[in-house]
Amino acid sequence: METQDPEPIFPHELRDAWPALSRDERVESFRLVPHATADDFFLSLSAQEQAHLLLALAPGERRTWLRLLAPDDAVDVIQSTPAEVRDSLLRELDETTRREVHALMAYAEDAAGGLMNPRFARVRPEMTIDEAISYLRRQTREKVETVYYAYALDLHQHLLGVVSLRQLFQAAPDKRVSDVMKRELVTVAEHTDQEAVSRLFAAQSLMAIPVVDAERRMKGIVTVDDIVQVVQEEATEDIQKVGGMEALDAPYFAVTFLDMLKKRAGWLLVLFLGEMLTATAMGHFEEEISHAVVLALFVPLIISSGGNSGSQATTLIIRSLALSEIRLRDWWRVARREVLAGVALGATLGTVGIVRILIWQEIFGSYGEHFFLVALTVGLSLVGVVTWGTLSGSMLPFVLRRLGFDPASASAPFVATLVDVSGLVIYFTVASLLLRGTLL
Amino acid sequence: METQDPEPIFPHELRDAWPALSRDERVESFRLVPHATADDFFLSLSAQEQAHLLLALAPGERRTWLRLLAPDDAVDVIQSTPAEVRDSLLRELDETTRREVHALMAYAEDAAGGLMNPRFARVRPEMTIDEAISYLRRQTREKVETVYYAYALDLHQHLLGVVSLRQLFQAAPDKRVSDVMKRELVTVAEHTDQEAVSRLFAAQSLMAIPVVDAERRMKGIVTVDDIVQVVQEEATEDIQKVGGMEALDAPYFAVTFLDMLKKRAGWLLVLFLGEMLTATAMGHFEEEISHAVVLALFVPLIISSGGNSGSQATTLIIRSLALSEIRLRDWWRVARREVLAGVALGATLGTVGIVRILIWQEIFGSYGEHFFLVALTVGLSLVGVVTWGTLSGSMLPFVLRRLGFDPASASAPFVATLVDVSGLVIYFTVASLLLRGTLL
Repeated sequence: METQDPEPIFPHELRDAWPALSRDERVESFRLVPHATADDFFLSLSAQEQAHLLLALAPGERRTWLRLLAPDDAVDVIQSTPAEVRDSLLRELDETTRREVHALMAYAEDAAGGLMNPRFARVRPEMTIDEAISYLRRQTREKVETVYYAYALDLHQHLLGVVSLRQLFQAAPDKRVSDVMKRELVTVAEHTDQEAVSRLFAAQSLMAIPVVDAERRMKGIVTVDDIVQVVQEEATEDIQKVGGMEALDAPYFAVTFLDMLKKRAGWLLVLFLGEMLTATAMGHFEEEISHAVVLALFVPLIISSGGNSGSQATTLIIRSLALSEIRLRDWWRVARREVLAGVALGATLGTVGIVRILIWQEIFGSYGEHFFLVALTVGLSLVGVVTWGTLSGSMLPFVLRRLGFDPASASAPFVATLVDVSGLVIYFTVASLLLRGTLL
Repeated sequence: METQDPEPIFPHELRDAWPALSRDERVESFRLVPHATADDFFLSLSAQEQAHLLLALAPGERRTWLRLLAPDDAVDVIQSTPAEVRDSLLRELDETTRREVHALMAYAEDAAGGLMNPRFARVRPEMTIDEAISYLRRQTREKVETVYYAYALDLHQHLLGVVSLRQLFQAAPDKRVSDVMKRELVTVAEHTDQEAVSRLFAAQSLMAIPVVDAERRMKGIVTVDDIVQVVQEEATEDIQKVGGMEALDAPYFAVTFLDMLKKRAGWLLVLFLGEMLTATAMGHFEEEISHAVVLALFVPLIISSGGNSGSQATTLIIRSLALSEIRLRDWWRVARREVLAGVALGATLGTVGIVRILIWQEIFGSYGEHFFLVALTVGLSLVGVVTWGTLSGSMLPFVLRRLGFDPASASAPFVATLVDVSGLVIYFTVASLLLRGTLL
């Protein structure tokens, strides 16, 4: 990133220092940014940061900055402020914007309606190209944000087609909009979830997607620059869930210590309570362990292998579901593939495990006279545990989605916990079968 | 997504069916798409899918589709084909595009140069607004892809400023470009990594960023629609690494079974070899276990709690590093915070663990006469193991980044494995200290 202003470094420096500054320092430094670059700097902040700044400024100063924002961005900022100051902020907006902002605030933040900008460039299908271009020029002089696409509407705001500026510029000036416009176009409904909207953008390489109501009346546009943030936020949420915690919904240092603790302690406790079943399960095999302490030595190795293979499988499937690479109805194809993968991976680890035990026995004589049976127990258990871990790890996200939960909640630690308990049962069952009459 | 063509359903249907179709079926169905919509359908495919289609079509048919692509997209497609057919595909391009494609192919795929489109709208600073608009009209009639921004260059292609179409449309027709253009602008170098480019887009809400060389000569633009895919791919890579596997780099069903197995078996084996140390560690405490089998019962509970808290911490830090929310130099602030978090989380789990043992003892009498000392051992070990898990989980991504590796390789299973071994040592050490003379 480079800049070429007479004072090029300052906003850049401030951007760099920003995360480390206290709220007061931010306000103070922001006031020092030269006016020519302050607009851009303000617009480059997140909605939350903009809200903090606005609240810290004197009411008289707020108006300039608030009016800089497009209606959809103003909504985000206002929704980031405490309920009691929202009305006073709304009053700083001009009449039209206030109405637009009010309408937008009725939508869920993560729906297309909550993301869209109600200002878009419009043309009539019967206009000539030249008329359309000068009509667009007039609209931009007023309030229209994006003029990459112009939407052709009838008198009742029904969406009929779209022309890109490029097409308008390319066409002969006396042709009509209806001659060049594209009639088959991708649209989304007001309540479409932002994840679905971002998948459309990723698949289609579009700059904007129109939002229409049930009667196909045009309500606004979602532009791709807003989607980059959505994609990143959704990915962050998924990654944090996969890691076994609630999504933080804010940068690491922006979350208070207590809030962060709460988001982590919840899942950790649930996992801990689940993991307590391992103590119960082990309790059932106390007799076997006291006869053959050697069995206890391999408990961590075996259950963690199940957990690791389960983590891999669940992560893979969670992401593929999130990207719609696989769908709910593919579960059976996935299950067959994962069972095969599980057996192959389990056999690999099992073989390595057996070889390890045989070598240690050769060198240290660690495992007593029945070392071969112990090795076989470990090897076979690994095949069973890894196959089971892989299968349950891959199926859990499907089950969660089917029940209406977020598949990403099938986190790596969650699957590991699930597999730990069943892994113990598999291991000690194999041991009882193979070692009955010798070690047990 | 709706469509309003006379035959509106077909491309839509094909899109839906696409993932399940074999390569032959795809080619066959693609030939059946009505021509008016086939362009859009072809452009909506991924570069890999486009490459497969092209190769399956007769050489005569290829040209139409290949020439539909912007130079940067053509590069992606050609790079997805086997080396021996690339020359023949290049020959299908027109002279100008072939030169552009050649130049682009010299850049790394994941650098700004590899993402950029060499065709952009340009103006001269001394032009009037009206001259600039008709100059832009002329350019779009030729080959320019995006006309959202026009870049003001001097005679030697140095980038001087940028105007948005919106600004051109708003300005008085007789003003000059240099009067309205923005001179301080965000640029990237040709070799800037795509992750850094996508962070700029996410932070700045821009539609395009110019790519300049060391002398600030303009080379092309990266547009935001290409970035949505980049952000999604990078997030997928990170999620898969966090889950403990190599990144797949392709959709689940698009990867052959063997390739997938390889990407999973590698890490699984590394983790398995690491986890073998638990058997060694346990071996050292075989004596203690045989005296007090009750100790073995809590091994899975304790090591998994360390693993889970480590997974949370590592996931959190990996993502924050990826989004530049925290930087390398913040490691000390993070360490202090995470130690506190670890102690708090460990104390919570430890308390729950002690209560659990006391209740079970009351009801089932499971843990013998020294039950209180056992409970204390488990509780204290949990504080130690969770603190250690949290600290090492949060620091490992910093260490990896410092050493030049991808922090995301500090996967949840990797940290869990690390913590398992040290967790055992902590647990049995606490046990020897507390139980010496009673159980041991």
